[in-house]
Amino acid sequence: MVETPLRVRYAETDRMGIVYHANYLVWFEIGRTEYCRAAGLPYRAMEESGVWILVTAIDCRYRRSARYDDALIVRAWIGELAARGMTFRYEVADSEGRILADGASRHVFAGPDGRPRRAPEDLLARLERFRAPAQNA
Amino acid sequence: MVETPLRVRYAETDRMGIVYHANYLVWFEIGRTEYCRAAGLPYRAMEESGVWILVTAIDCRYRRSARYDDALIVRAWIGELAARGMTFRYEVADSEGRILADGASRHVFAGPDGRPRRAPEDLLARLERFRAPAQNA
Amino acid sequence: MVETPLRVRYAETDRMGIVYHANYLVWFEIGRTEYCRAAGLPYRAMEESGVWILVTAIDCRYRRSARYDDALIVRAWIGELAARGMTFRYEVADSEGRILADGASRHVFAGPDGRPRRAPEDLLARLERFRAPAQNA
Amino acid sequence: MVETPLRVRYAETDRMGIVYHANYLVWFEIGRTEYCRAAGLPYRAMEESGVWILVTAIDCRYRRSARYDDALIVRAWIGELAARGMTFRYEVADSEGRILADGASRHVFAGPDGRPRRAPEDLLARLERFRAPAQNA
Repeated sequence: MVETPLRVRYAETDRMGIVYHANYLVWFEIGRTEYCRAAGLPYRAMEESGVWILVTAIDCRYRRSARYDDALIVRAWIGELAARGMTFRYEVADSEGRILADGASRHVFAGPDGRPRRAPEDLLARLERFRAPAQNA
Repeated sequence: MVETPLRVRYAETDRMGIVYHANYLVWFEIGRTEYCRAAGLPYRAMEESGVWILVTAIDCRYRRSARYDDALIVRAWIGELAARGMTFRYEVADSEGRILADGASRHVFAGPDGRPRRAPEDLLARLERFRAPAQNA
Repeated sequence: MVETPLRVRYAETDRMGIVYHANYLVWFEIGRTEYCRAAGLPYRAMEESGVWILVTAIDCRYRRSARYDDALIVRAWIGELAARGMTFRYEVADSEGRILADGASRHVFAGPDGRPRRAPEDLLARLERFRAPAQNA
Repeated sequence: MVETPLRVRYAETDRMGIVYHANYLVWFEIGRTEYCRAAGLPYRAMEESGVWILVTAIDCRYRRSARYDDALIVRAWIGELAARGMTFRYEVADSEGRILADGASRHVFAGPDGRPRRAPEDLLARLERFRAPAQNA
């Protein structure tokens, strides 16, 4: 699991005084980005090498509100991992450890042309090792 | 079912050249707004009368990409409806009728303080009539 | 001058209860898109033919607030026009004709590689004719 | 001057492959938030005490593009400061110190009702001391 801190932006609030719900998906993506970086696979480098990770489904449950300037944590980890695609899972927590939201995203690997492709073996191996270091020791 | 046309904004695209996935949730919300208006219950008036509709869960499946300047249709309709909350369902289609994405949102009714409340009877009756005119004829 | 109607989205508001100021720049871009379409030069087609219009400067003055669900008008017109670049000017008005904001954007023409280029003659001629039909009659 | 690091989000890019220009205004606001915090005046606490800082004008010049995952710095400092309002100035720089954009925002102080008001003396004194410690020693 990789944890990324973030601070709620004014632009992310809505007239209810809380964070607009679509922004949690942006935070999930930040969690995903930092997960890949921590695994030694910066997502930008992956794209530049021709491996794109398309989003095919997303879900999110909202449990508590976040407010402007709150210091939050996004947690991201891999659910399933296969040559065709993968799932990420997420939690957003506040500074007291309460879960504000959780969710998941499903992905397929694609080439720069947007067509599905299998992920390279070494990429899968590296993600697999990062995700379950004990099992792979 | 209520249909709302929209045009993809440049700001809604990302470096993949397609619409960034979180924006579909914003479009769902536009569908919801226009559904309530068509039912004779403009959502802004509902909020001003003390009935807020909070989002408690969302899901979306992405089937095809949307691109800058595409003319799209958002379809919204009610799934479940109860005094405590409701669900909306959505489809986003392109100008040739292909479904780009579909999804749902779950909601609870709340007061201006954010606490759950039952929806007023007349609001429920009106939504019920709008949603199933035949059954209620 | 080209006028485009728009409806304020919930996502565009902030915790002050009004539209977050950066969204006016998105609305300016909508005005620009519709101006180009009205001139017979859909911006997406321009990009696909290799002419990109980069933003090099922007300014906006905020005079009155916009609120969720307000029906607004964006007006866009050309300020200056030259082979190297151009300026657009904008106004955002509410349904009673009051000006909520006005501003301008400066642009340079560029190729797909992002490098400055001169705009094609026929593009300039068409924009010039559209902008000042009387003078060019 | 207060410096705040940020990392470009995928959601902030557009189909040109670079950051969509309106997002720089969101970054300016992050710079403003951190400036106030560094001055001992967290903006959220200011709002809760009844002092709102409305944006009345903004300008930005774009000099170089930012890309997904770039590590950037936002610099913010006070231009003018008076009882009725103030200006902030900004620069966005990349990790090699190159200026990507600079700009300014003009503000008036307002009450929770949105009406202009004078800023409290102690708030002005504190901002003044923070901005020019030498002159005020």
